[in-house]
Amino acid sequence: MEGQDEHSPGASAHPHADADLYGDDGVIRASFLALVGAAIADRDTLTLRQEVGKLHQSELGDLLEALLPEQRRALVDLMGSDFDFSALTEVDEAIRLEIVDSLPNAQIAQAVQELDSDDAVYILEDLDQEDQDEILAQLPFTERIRLRRSLDYPEESAGRRMQTEFVAVPPFWTVGQTIDYMREDKDLPDRFTQIFVIDPTFKLLGAVDLDQILRSKRAVKVEDVMHETRHAIPASMDQEEAAHEFEQYDLLSAAVVDENDRLVGVLTIDDVVDVIQQEAEEDLLRMGGVGDEELSDSVLAASRSRVPWLLVNLFTAFLAASVIGLFDHTIERIVALAVLMPIVAGMGGNAGSQTMTVTVRALATRDLDIYNAGRIIRREMGVGSLNGMIFAVLIGIVAALWFQDPNLGGIIAAAMIINMFVAALAGILIPLLLDRLGADPAVASAVFVTTVTDVVGFFAFLGLATWWFGLL
Amino acid sequence: MEGQDEHSPGASAHPHADADLYGDDGVIRASFLALVGAAIADRDTLTLRQEVGKLHQSELGDLLEALLPEQRRALVDLMGSDFDFSALTEVDEAIRLEIVDSLPNAQIAQAVQELDSDDAVYILEDLDQEDQDEILAQLPFTERIRLRRSLDYPEESAGRRMQTEFVAVPPFWTVGQTIDYMREDKDLPDRFTQIFVIDPTFKLLGAVDLDQILRSKRAVKVEDVMHETRHAIPASMDQEEAAHEFEQYDLLSAAVVDENDRLVGVLTIDDVVDVIQQEAEEDLLRMGGVGDEELSDSVLAASRSRVPWLLVNLFTAFLAASVIGLFDHTIERIVALAVLMPIVAGMGGNAGSQTMTVTVRALATRDLDIYNAGRIIRREMGVGSLNGMIFAVLIGIVAALWFQDPNLGGIIAAAMIINMFVAALAGILIPLLLDRLGADPAVASAVFVTTVTDVVGFFAFLGLATWWFGLL
Repeated sequence: MEGQDEHSPGASAHPHADADLYGDDGVIRASFLALVGAAIADRDTLTLRQEVGKLHQSELGDLLEALLPEQRRALVDLMGSDFDFSALTEVDEAIRLEIVDSLPNAQIAQAVQELDSDDAVYILEDLDQEDQDEILAQLPFTERIRLRRSLDYPEESAGRRMQTEFVAVPPFWTVGQTIDYMREDKDLPDRFTQIFVIDPTFKLLGAVDLDQILRSKRAVKVEDVMHETRHAIPASMDQEEAAHEFEQYDLLSAAVVDENDRLVGVLTIDDVVDVIQQEAEEDLLRMGGVGDEELSDSVLAASRSRVPWLLVNLFTAFLAASVIGLFDHTIERIVALAVLMPIVAGMGGNAGSQTMTVTVRALATRDLDIYNAGRIIRREMGVGSLNGMIFAVLIGIVAALWFQDPNLGGIIAAAMIINMFVAALAGILIPLLLDRLGADPAVASAVFVTTVTDVVGFFAFLGLATWWFGLL
Repeated sequence: MEGQDEHSPGASAHPHADADLYGDDGVIRASFLALVGAAIADRDTLTLRQEVGKLHQSELGDLLEALLPEQRRALVDLMGSDFDFSALTEVDEAIRLEIVDSLPNAQIAQAVQELDSDDAVYILEDLDQEDQDEILAQLPFTERIRLRRSLDYPEESAGRRMQTEFVAVPPFWTVGQTIDYMREDKDLPDRFTQIFVIDPTFKLLGAVDLDQILRSKRAVKVEDVMHETRHAIPASMDQEEAAHEFEQYDLLSAAVVDENDRLVGVLTIDDVVDVIQQEAEEDLLRMGGVGDEELSDSVLAASRSRVPWLLVNLFTAFLAASVIGLFDHTIERIVALAVLMPIVAGMGGNAGSQTMTVTVRALATRDLDIYNAGRIIRREMGVGSLNGMIFAVLIGIVAALWFQDPNLGGIIAAAMIINMFVAALAGILIPLLLDRLGADPAVASAVFVTTVTDVVGFFAFLGLATWWFGLL
């Protein structure tokens, strides 16, 4: 029965999701892992086909990630054509490459033909040009052309993520004809939520949602129920941009068109959900000073991805240190300043990070724009001043009591107010400026903001102390 | 014509999204804003109904956010029943409350009846109990019962987010009967992608996707094409958990059932996309030390949400300062230590943040579990050691040259290796421990990690120096 395969969508469409597979913590149960491990060790293909063959692609993906590398390769070997290659779209890039690289290209070519085109592209796009060409050469002509066309679109574009299987009918067909066509045609996509309407040159005329088809009488013409698709997604559009269209207009799927407005594929919400997750992850990792890192990366790969950021921070740390160096004579006289100065810099850094986090996120969700930027800047200046005064009083009192010196309390309080206000300004203006310059504010804001708060924090505190105690 | 309303999904189903509305930067054009502003000032309802009435709900939401508060209220007033209240689900909570609070309850009750139940609940749930009761009392009986039931489920549960409009048929109906029913019934939901199969007591038996209906002959019984729904979403399930099910199994919609397995609603992917965005946003904001803050919050509200985090940081800053205080005599003798010590602490803090960011994100996406925790901990220790050695050499050389003292270079290098290694350990173990204890690792990890790197950084550097230079 068609449609009841592993792609069938809908209410908990995971007839395979055994209550036994995942424990309460959402992690694959150790008992299942032991069962699979034993079957692999015994080369027991019967058990594997039975237990692993029934998993949903994402469950199989979780299983692959939980296995050891040698078990993964053995599992793929033992299951042969029963191995669902779409599971490879659900695992870390490093694990995917490890498995794909261990297989002969002929076997990958075979497997790729079973996949939806978007899954096939997802697996092929990470391979080197040479392997890609060799695999494509072994595919039937139409398949090869389709995949090649997707792969020719830029990375992270709608064309890369689209599925080239879709249902399209001419505008003069009736609803009845369309339904009959779908009842007969055995070559339909695994799942679809709308039908496209095209002219003989494949130019997109419109689209009809399936519920609309089902609401309409058989005699009604498709062109009379279709809605115009004035904003079909260009294949070259960035995937993040396309995801924004889906969110903005609550789309389930969207036509993808080439530069001549011809229908070349369909982008579906499940791929868009992955894009949204991925973009949110990228922002988070970038703000944390981590690049395109994956959990499966080696020590060397992870180190390489983190060193550049640490290098930049090292440079700014020396900048801050040299500001302290300006006041070494003052510190020699009043060593309490050395004890207290990290507090001023650190609190400024934290306050700046708060403002920056809010700003970067609001820029990413397009909630911050020219209409409210002025208001938000004023608000942040207000928050910076208010919190600056609150913490100036607190820290001033504690410092005065600790070192039995009201002068020191007054100086650190004044420095706190200055630094918290500057932190607020830097926290909003730096991301806004980077965004305006076309840079990604998530990447570089943190380092600039903490540089400002360190430099200003040390300078204000030590400078005020030097002046107040007459040590100029 | 049904289905061509503002809810119709599908390929760029936004016939209203004028190319003119948004500029290239994705922000509403100033010219459109001026047009609307002028129409509001002139009380020109004709222009408003024409220009604003045709907007998609999310476009209207963007417009509301771009207007001034008094313009918003005037717009709602002037448009009367032509104002699409579903736009209120697309704006900041503060703006939503501001608009809703300015309207009489009778008008809200009127508007709520026009909305899908999930949108109605979204607007009602933020109101005080008193207003909620008054509005509900003015609704027709069935409507009131439905909304009341949704509102009785806990906040952020599937029951709150579900739509109570759905199509359900008995199992013995044929595909033909089902299609005829949909052609006749004018009370269908605005959009749907599957049909549920229930017994006379509303107990959920299964679901059929619309494409499956369209592939099947008229005489086929629904129960023969339906798929079982063994994992329908319980109404009390947390929305984040439900979103994870959608992602895991690529669902478009899912049945929501009560504790007796009776169908009470349907959760749709567009709501799930919002949940995913919201949860990603929460993680990011929490890691940045910001609570449930919105862009429309006032200075006081934003200050209040940020002070607790700054207070915690203040406490840990004093902790770090008191570690420095232990070595005040050493600093008095060698003031270069005061200049260099923030570098050791700061680099450790950055390295710890990197590890922590990767860990927190991997925990959120469930990529980090007991099967790979050991490997990831070992990897982070490796990365910490490697990067520690790289930066120890760099900083050691620069410090030795700067202060013309190879001893100082050696001491700072040793302290760097210690602190970077400790940073890596803290960066992974602290979030893992918080997660195990049931706390949200995104909230508290940062403060603990930087406390550790500050304290260890200052102690290792100043302690080593005190010992090496014989100042004990």
